[in-house]
Amino acid sequence: MLYITRRETFSAGHRLYNPDWSDERNQDVFGKDANPNGHGHTYTLEVTVRGEINPETGMVIDLRDLREIIRRTVTDKVDHANLNLDVDFLRGVLPSAENIVVACWQQLLPALDGVQLYRLRLWESENNSVEYFGD
Amino acid sequence: MLYITRRETFSAGHRLYNPDWSDERNQDVFGKDANPNGHGHTYTLEVTVRGEINPETGMVIDLRDLREIIRRTVTDKVDHANLNLDVDFLRGVLPSAENIVVACWQQLLPALDGVQLYRLRLWESENNSVEYFGD
Amino acid sequence: MLYITRRETFSAGHRLYNPDWSDERNQDVFGKDANPNGHGHTYTLEVTVRGEINPETGMVIDLRDLREIIRRTVTDKVDHANLNLDVDFLRGVLPSAENIVVACWQQLLPALDGVQLYRLRLWESENNSVEYFGD
Amino acid sequence: MLYITRRETFSAGHRLYNPDWSDERNQDVFGKDANPNGHGHTYTLEVTVRGEINPETGMVIDLRDLREIIRRTVTDKVDHANLNLDVDFLRGVLPSAENIVVACWQQLLPALDGVQLYRLRLWESENNSVEYFGD
Amino acid sequence: MLYITRRETFSAGHRLYNPDWSDERNQDVFGKDANPNGHGHTYTLEVTVRGEINPETGMVIDLRDLREIIRRTVTDKVDHANLNLDVDFLRGVLPSAENIVVACWQQLLPALDGVQLYRLRLWESENNSVEYFGD
Amino acid sequence: MLYITRRETFSAGHRLYNPDWSDERNQDVFGKDANPNGHGHTYTLEVTVRGEINPETGMVIDLRDLREIIRRTVTDKVDHANLNLDVDFLRGVLPSAENIVVACWQQLLPALDGVQLYRLRLWESENNSVEYFGD
Repeated sequence: MLYITRRETFSAGHRLYNPDWSDERNQDVFGKDANPNGHGHTYTLEVTVRGEINPETGMVIDLRDLREIIRRTVTDKVDHANLNLDVDFLRGVLPSAENIVVACWQQLLPALDGVQLYRLRLWESENNSVEYFGD
Repeated sequence: MLYITRRETFSAGHRLYNPDWSDERNQDVFGKDANPNGHGHTYTLEVTVRGEINPETGMVIDLRDLREIIRRTVTDKVDHANLNLDVDFLRGVLPSAENIVVACWQQLLPALDGVQLYRLRLWESENNSVEYFGD
Repeated sequence: MLYITRRETFSAGHRLYNPDWSDERNQDVFGKDANPNGHGHTYTLEVTVRGEINPETGMVIDLRDLREIIRRTVTDKVDHANLNLDVDFLRGVLPSAENIVVACWQQLLPALDGVQLYRLRLWESENNSVEYFGD
Repeated sequence: MLYITRRETFSAGHRLYNPDWSDERNQDVFGKDANPNGHGHTYTLEVTVRGEINPETGMVIDLRDLREIIRRTVTDKVDHANLNLDVDFLRGVLPSAENIVVACWQQLLPALDGVQLYRLRLWESENNSVEYFGD
Repeated sequence: MLYITRRETFSAGHRLYNPDWSDERNQDVFGKDANPNGHGHTYTLEVTVRGEINPETGMVIDLRDLREIIRRTVTDKVDHANLNLDVDFLRGVLPSAENIVVACWQQLLPALDGVQLYRLRLWESENNSVEYFGD
Repeated sequence: MLYITRRETFSAGHRLYNPDWSDERNQDVFGKDANPNGHGHTYTLEVTVRGEINPETGMVIDLRDLREIIRRTVTDKVDHANLNLDVDFLRGVLPSAENIVVACWQQLLPALDGVQLYRLRLWESENNSVEYFGD
């Protein structure tokens, strides 16, 4: 069993804001993350899949295929987008790193064939990251 | 003459848009960077100053002072902000990396004392950066 | 279950030396690490906690809180310190990377509330690191 | 139980090519990776071992020993080599990252004493990596 | 005057070998770099151009254009290639990092319009790099 | 004219302290950097030399020679050392990054032959660095 990781980046805007709360409570809980006009990040997404080596190719999955699946289902949709407003698969989702990574999992899972999605890691900055294993 | 560099990061939103143009022309020129709801980056700013070594301290400038000047005049103002709307020193400025770095220069220059501002480098991502030497 | 990682750095001095041994044996076992006047590292500590997403905030833990806990219990105590002499929670501990990371675990564990401490990773340099999962 | 990771780099050439196939099929499956004259990578190999802390030394394994074992059994053999032609332990192996990492595992396993080989991670570039845990 | 840098990577094979010399002399001068079957690197190329800010766009050059020029004239030709045998603009060139960077300059210079090529930096590994300013 | 950079790291301890001053003044000026038992850093030193390409070798200088010169004259002396007490070429020098880099220049300059020492850059951490061009 081998674990293959592909790393992609995207640049997106977001704002942490719970619409069920007053502005004051949003400001209290999220601080600068609730600023009305939003901010953004250069995100890095690491996608790890696992599977057996195909003895004829020496590969678990062609990395060009994995890259295209990630771009088609995730990064082409979120790159240069506002994560609160522009992304179909984040509709109604508070775009915290935690919620983004879970939503990315749901995008990637049905698109992968012959390998198992094992782990997603999303970096908001060089100091902060979130990992998800699907459960 | 020694050159001292301090690196700081900030997370901000922006949109490239020229208000003198139609939406179509903005879309033509800026592509995804003109998306109406904006996007964002985790920016890295490198500030380089130069000066002589003080023989009593072995230092050109106390790096804690340099850090505080950068934070007070630049990064506290742009971090978790929308660069089109929220930042006093970017009012009326199209917030391209090039224009941001020139505006940062103007913020830092009067705040530095005893050293010479030599170079600013602004990274929008690990692949794209802009440098400015003040002229 | 989400895994949240916060990365902090600190600069510290240390010396590997077992006081129960002769200087010769220390030199034999630890080599340059036993040099009498010590040396030091810019350490990087990655703290990973895990927990459920709070559906109201989209977060497992506020990263500003996690950062403050790490600073208060660990990095403020070890930064710019001599790990053999200056740190209360390392008293009597031979400050190898392995022992430091176990001691950091014991500092962090009682300070975390509502999340589970999952993993610590300590880097002494870009090539050497140690991980600990608490058992 | 502590996990110790040592990172080493090497520069090597390779070509993905299955000798049981026609050139056309190799080109179809491997694309540019099948170019007849080969290409290459600056590889990074991360070796993780695990074990108990020796209470007298504070160490699981002396990192200088671990480094020498990695160099002697793996990186001295693959550095500045052609992985299709020059490396004894890759004879007859299609040198995909997956197959290389499995072959490195078999080189390292018998050379380690007193610690358990836990994980290998091989990076072909900053965006692509493979991990193996021995089963 | 602003300086814009775009970073691209490519994976290539090469061998240092002077055909006017005996094999022995090649081995003496180049060591492992002269191994007959070659080796390779994951190269990073940083291209820096300089120019004035266009006041209507806030940009010196559209980074997407710069990226396409670099790919078309350089990285598409050298990626997954053998630098001794496969690259038209390196025909007859001993592919040291120094000679590669000079040849890349000659490829890029006529393709750039409206900005001045200022600096190329080529990294063979994280520890070794070469810079060229065109003279 | 080509510029060649080699990067080396070393781990060292130091303390900022001016022996002509009282302890109070040292504490006022240097803060935690004056802690009596010292601290340390994982330093990175980048050495840049410049020269013409030798047309027979394609090289300005053999990077293995440059690496050996750096190790022999600088990094072997400062690695795992206390910069206040253990290093001959820092005797009587207050070991600030600025003073260290000037002293390294004086070590390297007479050891280089056929190339010109152009720039030294010393990183104390990922955020702080000092550059020196010899005047």
